[in-house]
Amino acid sequence: MAAWARAVRGLLLDISGVLNDSGGEGGGVPIAGSAEAVRRIKASGLKLRFCTNETQATREKFVKKLQGLGFDISVAEVTAPAPAACRLLKERGLRPHLLVHDDLVPEFADIDKTNPNCVVIGDAAENFSYANLNEAFRVLIGLEKPVLISLGKGRYYKETDGLKLDVGAYMKALEYACDVQAEVVGKPAKAFFESALAEMGVPPEQAIMIGDDIVSDVGGAQQCGMRAVQVRTGKYSCQHTRETFAQLHSLLSHGKLGCTMCAAVVLQMVMFLQNEGMLQSVLLQQSKHLV
Amino acid sequence: MAAWARAVRGLLLDISGVLNDSGGEGGGVPIAGSAEAVRRIKASGLKLRFCTNETQATREKFVKKLQGLGFDISVAEVTAPAPAACRLLKERGLRPHLLVHDDLVPEFADIDKTNPNCVVIGDAAENFSYANLNEAFRVLIGLEKPVLISLGKGRYYKETDGLKLDVGAYMKALEYACDVQAEVVGKPAKAFFESALAEMGVPPEQAIMIGDDIVSDVGGAQQCGMRAVQVRTGKYSCQHTRETFAQLHSLLSHGKLGCTMCAAVVLQMVMFLQNEGMLQSVLLQQSKHLV
Repeated sequence: MAAWARAVRGLLLDISGVLNDSGGEGGGVPIAGSAEAVRRIKASGLKLRFCTNETQATREKFVKKLQGLGFDISVAEVTAPAPAACRLLKERGLRPHLLVHDDLVPEFADIDKTNPNCVVIGDAAENFSYANLNEAFRVLIGLEKPVLISLGKGRYYKETDGLKLDVGAYMKALEYACDVQAEVVGKPAKAFFESALAEMGVPPEQAIMIGDDIVSDVGGAQQCGMRAVQVRTGKYSCQHTRETFAQLHSLLSHGKLGCTMCAAVVLQMVMFLQNEGMLQSVLLQQSKHLV
Repeated sequence: MAAWARAVRGLLLDISGVLNDSGGEGGGVPIAGSAEAVRRIKASGLKLRFCTNETQATREKFVKKLQGLGFDISVAEVTAPAPAACRLLKERGLRPHLLVHDDLVPEFADIDKTNPNCVVIGDAAENFSYANLNEAFRVLIGLEKPVLISLGKGRYYKETDGLKLDVGAYMKALEYACDVQAEVVGKPAKAFFESALAEMGVPPEQAIMIGDDIVSDVGGAQQCGMRAVQVRTGKYSCQHTRETFAQLHSLLSHGKLGCTMCAAVVLQMVMFLQNEGMLQSVLLQQSKHLV
């Protein structure tokens, strides 16, 4: 077994598209096998942190939903963009105009929002109305030095009723209209991954990020010096067919493993391969596909 | 008087922000002096064509509004994106999913819209809802080879009740989400200006474009080999103070003429300067500012 593979001590796990397909009041539907996989990771002694760009609800609210779906998860295990944004706003004396989901607003309760000198945009979902976008645009273009802070830069995500545009698309609209570049808080920002690693107490070379977004999850983690795996559930599954564990195993045996796999399966695979001393070749091939 | 200045035979005139500030049922409000300026241009013998990215209504409808505001304008004098898009759709056998203003839909009456194989986006205004954007996105991402056609790429424009995001911002959102590049029909596309020049029967070096958008109007015309002037009304006037004809004349005398002027004023200026043989120096200084 390769030295680095033996040294893997921590996993960062994306939530939406990996643990569950989000959407609806109940927190969407769990992806088959994922709750069991989380339990097995925790039992294995690997350190685990949930690293999400979820901004449609406070951490308390969406963790409660995930618990309701059978996941062993607590608020203290979650790294999310809103608290990171609040730290940044306080450090720089910024007063935001918020274009976010109603359910995220409580995360900004302690922040002065009078006479805004920046715009914070999150995945506002139904709040991405024509009127609200124009309002955020007018605040931004009216600033002498426009500051746009974006809670992530995802292109889209999958909910139970289909694909939805994510915050990144609306961020691009405001960037273009105001000729500014957004400051991204959340994945794929390096500081965000570093914060998650610090909270876990594991250096990047000893951690693996697992997510369904090639840019926010895989690209961001690699920029940070981590290894990363893209799963075939979530947004990925909408354009491609899933592969079973058996197919993956077969492909692996023939040296044809693709760069993406089903969420629950990849977690089982990581542990299986670690035991079998095969992890290095898989993840190196992974990197070749992704870099 | 310089040779090229004597040779100027045609003017292309933007509409919104130059003739009127749009918005409201009545077609907005005319910009002081613009109706008179149009009459003077026509009386002068210069050829004139209205070159607009207006996509919130059929040509018939917005021309009627402008006539109601006192402008001497007819449908036959207008070059607009929707008819250009229809020609392109027919040539390439494309069946659009439309994300446009309700009032523009009749322009696409002859176009097959069943089983869409492209998305056409215009300034949809209130139709830029969260649901409609997600729908257009799903059509686009579901295509094997996504084709996005955008009726213009303006950043924003001014209506009587304030600044509004233009089609370009939403185009960027879809481009980013689907990793495609839109094909722009309308200003600043070269083919669009060429079509307007052909309809006027004037070569680019003998024509001047006058508009309020530095990219769509001025940049596009310059790319096409025309000279161009940016006015200080419309979207420009929201961030900068206007200058009177007297001020401009004074600045001109001192060689400090800026790159932008008030709509009606610039039209008077063009003719005044042409008579005085001073057009070349002004417009060359213009180019220096803009290139």
